[in-house]
Amino acid sequence: MASNGSNGVSHAPEGNSAKPAHRFDPDFTQLVIDTMGPNTTPRNRVVLGALIRHLHDFTREVELTIDEWMTGVHFVNAVGQIYTKSRNEAHRVSDILGLESLVDEIAHKVIAENGDIDPTSSSILGPFWSPNAPFRELGGSIIQDGVPEGGRVTKMHGVIRDMTTGKPIPGAVFDIWQASANGKYDFQDPENQTANNLRGKFRANEKGEYYFYCLHPTAYSLPTDGPAYTLLKAMDRHPMRPAHIHIMVTHPDYQGCTTQLYPKDDPWLVTDTVFAVKPDLIADFKPLEGDDKAVLELEYNVVLAPKGYKSKA
Amino acid sequence: MASNGSNGVSHAPEGNSAKPAHRFDPDFTQLVIDTMGPNTTPRNRVVLGALIRHLHDFTREVELTIDEWMTGVHFVNAVGQIYTKSRNEAHRVSDILGLESLVDEIAHKVIAENGDIDPTSSSILGPFWSPNAPFRELGGSIIQDGVPEGGRVTKMHGVIRDMTTGKPIPGAVFDIWQASANGKYDFQDPENQTANNLRGKFRANEKGEYYFYCLHPTAYSLPTDGPAYTLLKAMDRHPMRPAHIHIMVTHPDYQGCTTQLYPKDDPWLVTDTVFAVKPDLIADFKPLEGDDKAVLELEYNVVLAPKGYKSKA
Repeated sequence: MASNGSNGVSHAPEGNSAKPAHRFDPDFTQLVIDTMGPNTTPRNRVVLGALIRHLHDFTREVELTIDEWMTGVHFVNAVGQIYTKSRNEAHRVSDILGLESLVDEIAHKVIAENGDIDPTSSSILGPFWSPNAPFRELGGSIIQDGVPEGGRVTKMHGVIRDMTTGKPIPGAVFDIWQASANGKYDFQDPENQTANNLRGKFRANEKGEYYFYCLHPTAYSLPTDGPAYTLLKAMDRHPMRPAHIHIMVTHPDYQGCTTQLYPKDDPWLVTDTVFAVKPDLIADFKPLEGDDKAVLELEYNVVLAPKGYKSKA
Repeated sequence: MASNGSNGVSHAPEGNSAKPAHRFDPDFTQLVIDTMGPNTTPRNRVVLGALIRHLHDFTREVELTIDEWMTGVHFVNAVGQIYTKSRNEAHRVSDILGLESLVDEIAHKVIAENGDIDPTSSSILGPFWSPNAPFRELGGSIIQDGVPEGGRVTKMHGVIRDMTTGKPIPGAVFDIWQASANGKYDFQDPENQTANNLRGKFRANEKGEYYFYCLHPTAYSLPTDGPAYTLLKAMDRHPMRPAHIHIMVTHPDYQGCTTQLYPKDDPWLVTDTVFAVKPDLIADFKPLEGDDKAVLELEYNVVLAPKGYKSKA
């Protein structure tokens, strides 16, 4: 018998079809999706149905080969095999594909309206935040273990304001964490750092001001001994993150802002391997004179959206 | 300052745009793709660029939440963590999403032209083929360890033909493997089966005929103790494969055909959890009389495409 139309040849319908023609079974993807049973939750049906559709569209578009598919299978197995409590490789892989940055944008994007001030952009949390950072006094220091070799002490300060009124937000909590001059966070570096070194929470005063001492941050590389780096090499990409300071600013009446700040002269800003840089997060570390505790100064003002501010355009 | 057009609001251009409008940074995905360096191979650039684009399109389309993203991160880690030499969970997950079936179609689809006979459809190899199956004599049996409880011996036979001429292909090799009546393959079941039980290769005679004894196959469940089953449950799907016999038919002058055959009365044909059933692979096991070695008969004729037959429409 000769082949017929149901045997894998598909043509796009006339007119404004969004799909390209392809020569494969046009019913296969819908068959897979429709196998979902009646007790699938509505959200699972939406998310997993879309996942299957995009996965199949990708596979047909590039005509993925058997060997390439098997490379992907081995890759996913390898990602999980290197997992430990302090090494989340799947998280890292999703970061280098831009996925965490994208879900962060989806979750936290606030668009200012009616002349309100743009709130401070959100950025990814990353895997190194700790819920155990101690409160410290305004004017104190997060440099608990002394200044490391190559460390440049910075006086950081600013005002936390309301995007709708421009007024300060007294009592807002400014949580900061950063890697040391060797590019490692406290719990990656137990030989050199005590718990909560370079971490701390500060409560803004009645003027919405915060100020404390920290380090000028240091650029560092993602680990280069696992599948995430294998993927980076396949894309001829470097594993560097620009130098950054993590902050999480919260207040009961406001939408919290988790983000990262970057020195404006960092060479990795444009090609940050996890795509977490946004223009308003690039900050200017300036030489500081007259303060015997610090050689640099960073002023950074934070703008928060009130809870319930319409966040979806 | 008020928000502006570069700050996350995107509108579809006028006219026949294939993309829906969304409210997120319209430049983000291209930025991630463009980070690939000049030494990326052309094929990696195509495959990984499309992977990133589809992953991002999926994420925006469903507005994936932070919690859903983290569920996915944990899922990928869990898939790799359960990996062993005899358990390839990433392969299994790709199967239940229809991916292996799709790459098999892309690799092996042959479309008959000019009145040629349709070749036998390809289907997925699965993880249980062995390169070590022994050649056995025509008319012999792959039931090496005796008939298991519940096993129904079947005389299987047929002719292997050329799709362009209809003529038999003497010397073609017919490699068969199947699970036992307990649903397990030899190397999953060392307590009950010796190596190469229910496996064998047969060489077609000068008439292109093959014939031997095997078992009527038994439906079985995928493992229910790992992430693949977690995913099936999320989709309210069963873990069953229809009963099937694996075959791989080869000859130096022809494109090999790896496929699976299914009894026509199997209840799982339509919802096969790995989507490997095609209409021409559904076969009729008939009662057999007058053969004291078997109670059933299966005739199945195989059609191969010559090497170089134009396989892409």
